[in-house]
Amino acid sequence: MTSIHSKSVPQSLIDFASSLADAASAVTMRHFRQPIDVETKADASPVTIADKQAELAIRALIEKTYPGHGVIGEEFPPVNPGSEFVWVIDPIDGTKSFITGRPLFGTLIALMWQGEAALGVIEHAALGERWIGATGHPTTFNGNPVRARACPNLVKSALMTSSPHYYKGTAVDAFERLRRSGGFVMYGTECMAYGLVASGFADIAIEAGMDIFDYLAAVPVIEGAGGIMTDWQGRRLDLTSGDQVIGVGDPRIHDEALSLLNA
Amino acid sequence: MTSIHSKSVPQSLIDFASSLADAASAVTMRHFRQPIDVETKADASPVTIADKQAELAIRALIEKTYPGHGVIGEEFPPVNPGSEFVWVIDPIDGTKSFITGRPLFGTLIALMWQGEAALGVIEHAALGERWIGATGHPTTFNGNPVRARACPNLVKSALMTSSPHYYKGTAVDAFERLRRSGGFVMYGTECMAYGLVASGFADIAIEAGMDIFDYLAAVPVIEGAGGIMTDWQGRRLDLTSGDQVIGVGDPRIHDEALSLLNA
Repeated sequence: MTSIHSKSVPQSLIDFASSLADAASAVTMRHFRQPIDVETKADASPVTIADKQAELAIRALIEKTYPGHGVIGEEFPPVNPGSEFVWVIDPIDGTKSFITGRPLFGTLIALMWQGEAALGVIEHAALGERWIGATGHPTTFNGNPVRARACPNLVKSALMTSSPHYYKGTAVDAFERLRRSGGFVMYGTECMAYGLVASGFADIAIEAGMDIFDYLAAVPVIEGAGGIMTDWQGRRLDLTSGDQVIGVGDPRIHDEALSLLNA
Repeated sequence: MTSIHSKSVPQSLIDFASSLADAASAVTMRHFRQPIDVETKADASPVTIADKQAELAIRALIEKTYPGHGVIGEEFPPVNPGSEFVWVIDPIDGTKSFITGRPLFGTLIALMWQGEAALGVIEHAALGERWIGATGHPTTFNGNPVRARACPNLVKSALMTSSPHYYKGTAVDAFERLRRSGGFVMYGTECMAYGLVASGFADIAIEAGMDIFDYLAAVPVIEGAGGIMTDWQGRRLDLTSGDQVIGVGDPRIHDEALSLLNA
């Protein structure tokens, strides 16, 4: 679980990631709670001009500032995916929230450095709330360091996930075992769930049916607050990971949660 | 479905309801995302000092300004419940949201006038967002009139509800029939769901397992925006109503939704 990076992420890259979030939010807030056309993608998920324009705004800044960096985004084809530095972008996490006026939609920006999630931004434009995690730095919420809370066992844990309907096949029962072992579950928190775990307001953020865009940014956020985030088998998350992830604030419950998921 | 009130709610009562929301929000925001003790009530739901203090702040203002009015609140015993004017209060709707740092928690304030829900406030303190509905007035969002959107059939409807786990017994299948007939479902929007229907961003807000505190304020908000809100049998909602409610933005889909719920 130790990072391959002997040195921490340069502040210049953290500041640049913030500027990417600023650029995305300028786009999303022009469209939030405004009339907007909604298309349906091949996977039946919705997409809007705001998703596309926000991703293009981010891509333009990266291309201008770090033309050698790679970019993998949800809405357009990858660029330089084999680079030492690869940005992984979800311009609007929670498009259904976005199109229904729920202010929990977010923008997710991850930087993969030599294959590891080294920097992550969780941006909530409509709330003016931003979590940033980076290797070698404490995770911050709007600039202030945050810390996950203690939760020595699952019984009183607060668990968050997007929707029960994202769990398919054996994942249905796996999630049910974990949910019933905890205190209570909140649905529909979108990517803020990872931030709330990092800030010590919730204990577990779990998802299934996700793509790498949907979670890689959360890894440095949760780990920089003292937590741990892996796939359901306990493996570190990277560009090759699957659709099931779990982030916990207190590493002591990570094994217990994985045992229930894989029982 | 016509109101018994030949005249509209006086502006003085609307302004007073706003001042009640201000008083509740001053309390809730002192405690939101701060360390707080959580008790468990007899029904296993959580409650905090913020719930109690917010309700007491509202009750104190009512007692001082309208000592003859009744008050029914979630956390303390009823006062004058047979009065011509009865306030029905949920100081924190979504206490689980409140204690996990989710800004969607709300305060719900309804005024029953001769037994009918004549005035309702949906207040989101952490977001600075307030819907007000009142008989004889257009529903407003932060002071600006809003209108529900057209949705002539269920197929593309956006449906919102708190949690699938609030549905018990036959309500489980009833909700499933409705959910599968629509476009998509969002969980965990709390009482903002009613506001988003009123503002034309969603089409249906449905709940089961609720108490009168949890929904009476939403009736004037949705109806003042052109929608309709009833129990699952299509009856108007009042102090004697049960635990199942549905609010729709476009009255044309109300019958279709009820047919599915009662199939």
